[in-house]
Amino acid sequence: MKDINIGILGCGIVGTGVAKLLMENHELLKSRIGTGLNLKYVADLDTHTPRGITFKEGVFISDAEQVLNDPDIDIVVELIGGKTIAQTFTLKALENKKHVVTANKALIASHGNELVKTATANGVEYAFEASCGGCMPVVKSIRESLVGNRIESFTGILNGTCNYILTKISKEGCPFGDALKEAQAKGYAEADPFLDVEGHDSAHKLAILAALAYGMEINLGDIHVEGISNITPMDIEFAREFGYCIKLLAISKNEDDTVEARVHPAMIPLDNPLAHVDKAMNAITIDGDASGQTMLYGAGAGMMPTASAVLSDIADIARNIISGCGQRVPILSYPGDNIKKIAVKPVSDINTGYYIRLAALDQPGVLSRVSGILAEYGISIKSVHQKGRRANGTVPIVMTTHIAREKDVQDALAKISNLDSIPEKSIIIRIEDKLNDQ
Amino acid sequence: MKDINIGILGCGIVGTGVAKLLMENHELLKSRIGTGLNLKYVADLDTHTPRGITFKEGVFISDAEQVLNDPDIDIVVELIGGKTIAQTFTLKALENKKHVVTANKALIASHGNELVKTATANGVEYAFEASCGGCMPVVKSIRESLVGNRIESFTGILNGTCNYILTKISKEGCPFGDALKEAQAKGYAEADPFLDVEGHDSAHKLAILAALAYGMEINLGDIHVEGISNITPMDIEFAREFGYCIKLLAISKNEDDTVEARVHPAMIPLDNPLAHVDKAMNAITIDGDASGQTMLYGAGAGMMPTASAVLSDIADIARNIISGCGQRVPILSYPGDNIKKIAVKPVSDINTGYYIRLAALDQPGVLSRVSGILAEYGISIKSVHQKGRRANGTVPIVMTTHIAREKDVQDALAKISNLDSIPEKSIIIRIEDKLNDQ
Repeated sequence: MKDINIGILGCGIVGTGVAKLLMENHELLKSRIGTGLNLKYVADLDTHTPRGITFKEGVFISDAEQVLNDPDIDIVVELIGGKTIAQTFTLKALENKKHVVTANKALIASHGNELVKTATANGVEYAFEASCGGCMPVVKSIRESLVGNRIESFTGILNGTCNYILTKISKEGCPFGDALKEAQAKGYAEADPFLDVEGHDSAHKLAILAALAYGMEINLGDIHVEGISNITPMDIEFAREFGYCIKLLAISKNEDDTVEARVHPAMIPLDNPLAHVDKAMNAITIDGDASGQTMLYGAGAGMMPTASAVLSDIADIARNIISGCGQRVPILSYPGDNIKKIAVKPVSDINTGYYIRLAALDQPGVLSRVSGILAEYGISIKSVHQKGRRANGTVPIVMTTHIAREKDVQDALAKISNLDSIPEKSIIIRIEDKLNDQ
Repeated sequence: MKDINIGILGCGIVGTGVAKLLMENHELLKSRIGTGLNLKYVADLDTHTPRGITFKEGVFISDAEQVLNDPDIDIVVELIGGKTIAQTFTLKALENKKHVVTANKALIASHGNELVKTATANGVEYAFEASCGGCMPVVKSIRESLVGNRIESFTGILNGTCNYILTKISKEGCPFGDALKEAQAKGYAEADPFLDVEGHDSAHKLAILAALAYGMEINLGDIHVEGISNITPMDIEFAREFGYCIKLLAISKNEDDTVEARVHPAMIPLDNPLAHVDKAMNAITIDGDASGQTMLYGAGAGMMPTASAVLSDIADIARNIISGCGQRVPILSYPGDNIKKIAVKPVSDINTGYYIRLAALDQPGVLSRVSGILAEYGISIKSVHQKGRRANGTVPIVMTTHIAREKDVQDALAKISNLDSIPEKSIIIRIEDKLNDQ
C-alpha cells in the first residue's frame, strides 16, 4: 500500500501541531495503521516565521492551490479558520475529490449542511472531530459509540476561555474584566475575545453536535446565545451558598423532535459531574436512552490536543482508503435522506429553574410586591434570601424558583423592573438541576 | 442491502438488554446505519423464565449450535460469560467466519491473544467494547480517537461494585462487610463477590486496555492485584484529612516499553477528576503525548448501558459489511506483527507515595524506632500523625512518605512488624499523586 499523502492548509497553532504530530509520531502511526501518513505539503501565506519544525525540501509552501490541485494529495487538512477563504478552499478540495479534515467550527456551523452535501456528492469525507471539544472524542462518540441510543440530551462546557474565566472569578472573587485580562495574558483568550466570552464559539459547537445527535440539519440561527460578561463574583458566591456553581453551558434536549439548544451561563449542583470541570478544560455529558449518562472530559483547545483530534480523523480516513470503503459512517451521523430540518424551540418556551437577584430599595413591602407579581405569572418561589440591610441604598434580594416557563419569568421581571423600589436591572441565571423541584 | 443477521448467545441480563435495544431502537438504527439489524436468534438453555420481551416465532431457542451453524448469521453476540463454553462457542463462531461481539472480559483477558489470532486468520472481527467500562467508549477511544498519540498512562475506576462499596464506606463510615451486604441487596454486587471485590474484574479490564494502549500482548498473569476488603472507615477518614479519597484503581504506565500494570486501592487527591466518580459509576483518565489527559465517565455495568456498548460494536461491524471492508482497525489496536510480548514490571520495583498506618503500643520511643527503620531503607517521611492516645492498648500512627520504591517499603515494614511495640499488622495504601513530592 502506498503512503497516504496529506496537505495542510494553514500553519498557525493547530496546523503546526498537526505537522509536528505527523512527523514525530510517524512510525507509531505507521505501525498502527499499516501505511505511512506522508506530510506532502504545509501551505501558508507566511512561510518565513519559524514554526519550530524542520520541513523537508518542498513541503512548506505558500500556494494553497498547489495542494488542492495535486492529484497525489488524498487528504486536505483545513486549519485556516474563518468562513471566507477556508470555505473556498474546502469546496475546491471536496470537488477535486479530496477528503477534508478540519477544526473549523465557525465554517461548519454556518455552511456545514452544503459542505456535507458537496462531500457526499463527491464520495469523500468531511471530518471535524477537532471542531468540538478539542481532544475529547465527542463527534465519534455520538456518531459511533452511542449509535444504538436515542440521544435525549447533552450538556457541555465547550469553551475553555469562558471556563477559565469563570473558574478564576469563582476561586479568587475577581471581577470579569480582570479575569479576562489574565486569560488573555496566559494565552487562554484571544485579543478579540468576543466569539468566546459572548458564547458564540460554544453555539457553533452546539449546532454541530445537535445535528449529529438528533439527525437534524445544522441550525445555528435558532440557538439562543448569552455570554458570561455579566457574571459577577456576587452571583457566584450566592450560587455556592445554594450548593451550585456557575458554568457557561451548551444545553440541548430532544423530546419527540422538539429540540432545545441554548448557550448561557447556568447554575448546576455541585454533584453534577460538570461542576468539577475547571480552568480551561472542556467536558460534555450525553444522555442516551440505553447508555444513561456518559461524560467526556479533556483539553478543549491547544496545539497538541487539537492536533490529536485532527489525527484521529486523518487515521479514520486513511483506514477507509486502505480497506477500500468510502463514506462508511454518514458525515452528519444520519444519511442525507434521513436528516430532518428541525426548528429549535424558542427560548421563551423553555422550562427551567431560575435564580433572580434584585437590587431593591430597603423599604417595607418590597418583597410582598415582588412575590405578588411572580405569583401573578404562576411562578413558584423556592427560596428567598434578603442579604444584609443597607440604609438609603439597595440591598440584594436573591430568589430561586421552581421550574417555570422562561416567558413568564421574563414578563414578570419586566413588570418588577417598573417598581419604584427596584431601581436597578435585575439579574437572572437559569438553574439546570434535574432535582430542582424535588 | 439485505439485513444484517444477528444471533445472541446467552439471555441473561446483558443478553436481554441487547435483544431489547435491537428491537426497540430498530428503526433508529436502520435510519442511521442504512440497513436493518435483524435479531434472528437468542439462544439460552433456559427459554422458560420470562425476560419481558416478546420474541418473534423461532427467535428464542435453546440450541446455540443452530446460531453457530446458520450460514445467514453475520454476527454472533457472546453474552454467556465465563471461560468454558463461551470459549468453545466463540472459537466455533470465528472458525465459521462469523464476527463475534462480546462483553466477556474474563475470557479475553485469559485467552484473548489466541482468539484474536483466530479472528484475524478467519477475516472476521472480535469486538469487545462492552468488556471494559460498560457504556464508556474506552476501547474505541484508545484504538481510534487517540491513534495519533503515544499513550503514556491510564488510570481507571473500572469496577462499579468496588466503587459503590468504597463510596458507601466513605459517606457513611460503615465497615466493609455492611457495605458489601447493601451492594448485594441492591444488585450492585453478585452473590459471590470475589472477582469484583478482590480486584480481579478490574485486572481483566486492565490487561485488555494495556494491550490496546501499548501494542502489547494481553498479559493478565503479570498484573499485581489487591482488592478492597481490607479498607476500613478509619483509613478513609485519615485519607480525607490529608486531602485524599480512596478508590480501587487500575493503573498502567508505559515508559519506553517498561510497562506498569496493577490493581489496588489507592489514595488520590481530591482535585483528581477520578475523585468525584462515586457510587457504581466507572471512569478512566488516559494520558497521551499529544492529547494530554482525557477522561471518560459512565455506567460501568447494568443491562442497558452494557447493551449500548455491544450495539456500538454491532453497528461498526454492520458498517464494515455494508461498505465492504473487513478488519479496518486491528482488533488489538496494532496489527499482529507489531504486537510485542512485554513483561509487566514487578510491583516490588514501582515507585510511588505510601500511606502507612501502624498500630503501636503507646510507649516512648516507638516513633523513633519506626522512623529509624524507614531511614535505613532510604524512605523519606512526608508527614507523621499520632492519632490520640490510649492507655494499655495501641494507638494508630499514620505516616505518609515521599516517592519510595515498593520493595524498600515492604522490607522496612517487615522489619517494623518485628518490633515488640507494633503488635498488629500494619496497613499500607499507595498514594497516586503526581504532585506528591512537590
